[in-house]
Amino acid sequence: MSTAITGVAVHDVRFPTARDGDGSDAINRGDYSASYVELTTDAGVTGAGFTFTNGRGNEITCAAIRALAHHVAGRTVEEIADRPVEFWRSLVADDQLRWLGPEKGVIHMATGALVNAVWDLRAKLAGKPMWRFLAELPTAELVASVDFRHITDALTPAEATDILDRGRAGLADRLAVLDADGFPSYTTSVGWLGYPDDKVRALTRQAYRQGWRAVKMKVGGRPADDLRRARIIRSEIGPDALLMMDANQVWDVDEAIDNMAALAEVDPYWIEEPTHADDILGHARIARAVAPVRVATGEVAANRVIFKQLLQAEAIGVMQIDACRVGGVNEVLAELLLAAKFGVPVCPHAGGVGLCEYVQHLAIFDYLRVGTDLDGRMVEYVDHLHEHFVDPVRTRGGRYLLPDQPGYSTTMRPESVARYRFPDGPVWR
Amino acid sequence: MSTAITGVAVHDVRFPTARDGDGSDAINRGDYSASYVELTTDAGVTGAGFTFTNGRGNEITCAAIRALAHHVAGRTVEEIADRPVEFWRSLVADDQLRWLGPEKGVIHMATGALVNAVWDLRAKLAGKPMWRFLAELPTAELVASVDFRHITDALTPAEATDILDRGRAGLADRLAVLDADGFPSYTTSVGWLGYPDDKVRALTRQAYRQGWRAVKMKVGGRPADDLRRARIIRSEIGPDALLMMDANQVWDVDEAIDNMAALAEVDPYWIEEPTHADDILGHARIARAVAPVRVATGEVAANRVIFKQLLQAEAIGVMQIDACRVGGVNEVLAELLLAAKFGVPVCPHAGGVGLCEYVQHLAIFDYLRVGTDLDGRMVEYVDHLHEHFVDPVRTRGGRYLLPDQPGYSTTMRPESVARYRFPDGPVWR
Repeated sequence: MSTAITGVAVHDVRFPTARDGDGSDAINRGDYSASYVELTTDAGVTGAGFTFTNGRGNEITCAAIRALAHHVAGRTVEEIADRPVEFWRSLVADDQLRWLGPEKGVIHMATGALVNAVWDLRAKLAGKPMWRFLAELPTAELVASVDFRHITDALTPAEATDILDRGRAGLADRLAVLDADGFPSYTTSVGWLGYPDDKVRALTRQAYRQGWRAVKMKVGGRPADDLRRARIIRSEIGPDALLMMDANQVWDVDEAIDNMAALAEVDPYWIEEPTHADDILGHARIARAVAPVRVATGEVAANRVIFKQLLQAEAIGVMQIDACRVGGVNEVLAELLLAAKFGVPVCPHAGGVGLCEYVQHLAIFDYLRVGTDLDGRMVEYVDHLHEHFVDPVRTRGGRYLLPDQPGYSTTMRPESVARYRFPDGPVWR
Repeated sequence: MSTAITGVAVHDVRFPTARDGDGSDAINRGDYSASYVELTTDAGVTGAGFTFTNGRGNEITCAAIRALAHHVAGRTVEEIADRPVEFWRSLVADDQLRWLGPEKGVIHMATGALVNAVWDLRAKLAGKPMWRFLAELPTAELVASVDFRHITDALTPAEATDILDRGRAGLADRLAVLDADGFPSYTTSVGWLGYPDDKVRALTRQAYRQGWRAVKMKVGGRPADDLRRARIIRSEIGPDALLMMDANQVWDVDEAIDNMAALAEVDPYWIEEPTHADDILGHARIARAVAPVRVATGEVAANRVIFKQLLQAEAIGVMQIDACRVGGVNEVLAELLLAAKFGVPVCPHAGGVGLCEYVQHLAIFDYLRVGTDLDGRMVEYVDHLHEHFVDPVRTRGGRYLLPDQPGYSTTMRPESVARYRFPDGPVWR
């Protein structure tokens, strides 16, 4: 008995967040949007996936998804599951479309949306939340889902097998920890660049009362402003809570080193995206200069080859994977395994729309089966737009509670899709 | 008196090359296509630019150009020329669209098409071919055209100024050399993977008779096939002509090192794209292992930050810039200056459709004003699709002749645009 994917529907869904300054940082300000994919099947179950964009241009990623859709439509879930790398390569190594990346930007984000929709479908058909579906897969099946091309100099299938086999030991104990306490997270809702000082103070105070002991602020504005806002936040959270900083790539390498020296007095835990996301050697130089402050990056790292090098160069102390910029679950598996091999904790990028819903599953799977340690592991949390999802994230006291519905939590409410569809939904008309 | 850009027209133009095996290599096989831009002005002059794609997906780059067009339409050429970095950043750092790259893939290729169209317009208005227009610009104006953000750790404006000022000395003598002999080039038309052995032999023999003393073959098929084809070519060109190899990224790092050891007997001049284009550290390892064979790459290098690192890591002995994958002339200037700073010769990527027309100008400018030496400098040449351009490349005895028409040679013949427009042109209907 097999399940055929009978159709691929693509929706351009946009939320008008830009006007409120939500999500504003040194380099981005946008209308959080999703290029949203629905895979219909002859089993009556629908797989959902999306890639996140900042609004303008969401029609471009939608066009890219449509250009790739013929690699998905008409296939059965079972044949994809049987030959996962062959399926993945049909998308990323399409002999005409690969040129548009390769494996980066619009075309790779489109791959991510489609690949994730297939995994959502698989988890739904299995009746399990994605984290559990992944955690319960046999090692051989997980390893067979990873395309090792271009990463064998850092991670071999045999090493991946070892990591995943070792990850079976103690899994039930780790699951009990999460069942009791949830997964640690931090909040980015307190310190967007667009917020005035009093709003930063009030939001920080509120977050601290709600239980958050790790908060992130945006930097990369005028250095004096960054320091003033950082002092406000540190004064509200006390000396023991973690204060992370995110420069969203605005600095040059030497500028990052200088600015972080000036911000050292507030004891930052990490500096995120201190310079251009493609600058592996630059991140490595910054990491050496700002230690013990960790360098973190990854939300716009294009693919596993970039992550491989960030690890090889000892450029990062925190790896921030994204669920839908890279080529979906298959490539995320490669990245989680690479991080485990190099001993660097993964703290996924979230926020936007639906990214929290996505990455909670990846972080939980990572802890249960790959990284196996909570030390240094946190999922970003932003309190935006969860109401548009059928199975939204739930948090308590600064921790994510375990999702319990089948699938990848990627299914949007039909009324949200209809209302926010661009340009014909009532919000945009 | 100023010239206003009154409109931006975008055309999806595709040539059905895939069916003949032209342009086939280890990873690409496509219908050479252009996302073609025309900027209309109130001066009656039209600026033309394009980005190259492999066919499917050309509608995606066209959509990206349309998404960026509002940054160009309505501006005057003079205000763009007065504040070139501000203009360039309006495209690459659009606060919503940047997320789609950043500065890579579809959205950056679209930037390249638009930026190049503006430069074509400027050269046409000045009545000069692009190479001459650039070579005669004052140093300060060239330096002001470069966005140094994220490259100051490798190249400062002061260093760029020094390079360009020094490039004024002897310029007339270098120009006389090109006037007499043309610019050196090599041909890639002999050894596409899709060609059988006898076709490879016949084409190589023909190329040698036509004067080519540097030819490139594709590798990355079965190693035994690669070696057999390489021996055929070497036997036809003799021991002194240059034989370049291009693996189009199919190998892993260790695989590249092993395979190049096996191919050493035919004395390759360079190995191009030995592994994934994003793998700076991998290219550096390969470069150390295969020396004295040079490592070459760049045709899909996303931006100046990638090129900066390839140079910093001593990963390349030949830098292969592309005219329209990066953000147009402004970013190419940064790359040429970086190459000069690190002493690596630039051999631009060409072929496809219109890439030879584009890069001849860049190579000539580089020699006249930046690199100032012909040693190791060659422009790729592929004998395809030149008939669709108003001012096609002209070659003699394996060398490019100097273009003499105003502009960037990017203007397509209107009848070709009409005939090959997708999906409504007669060729595709």
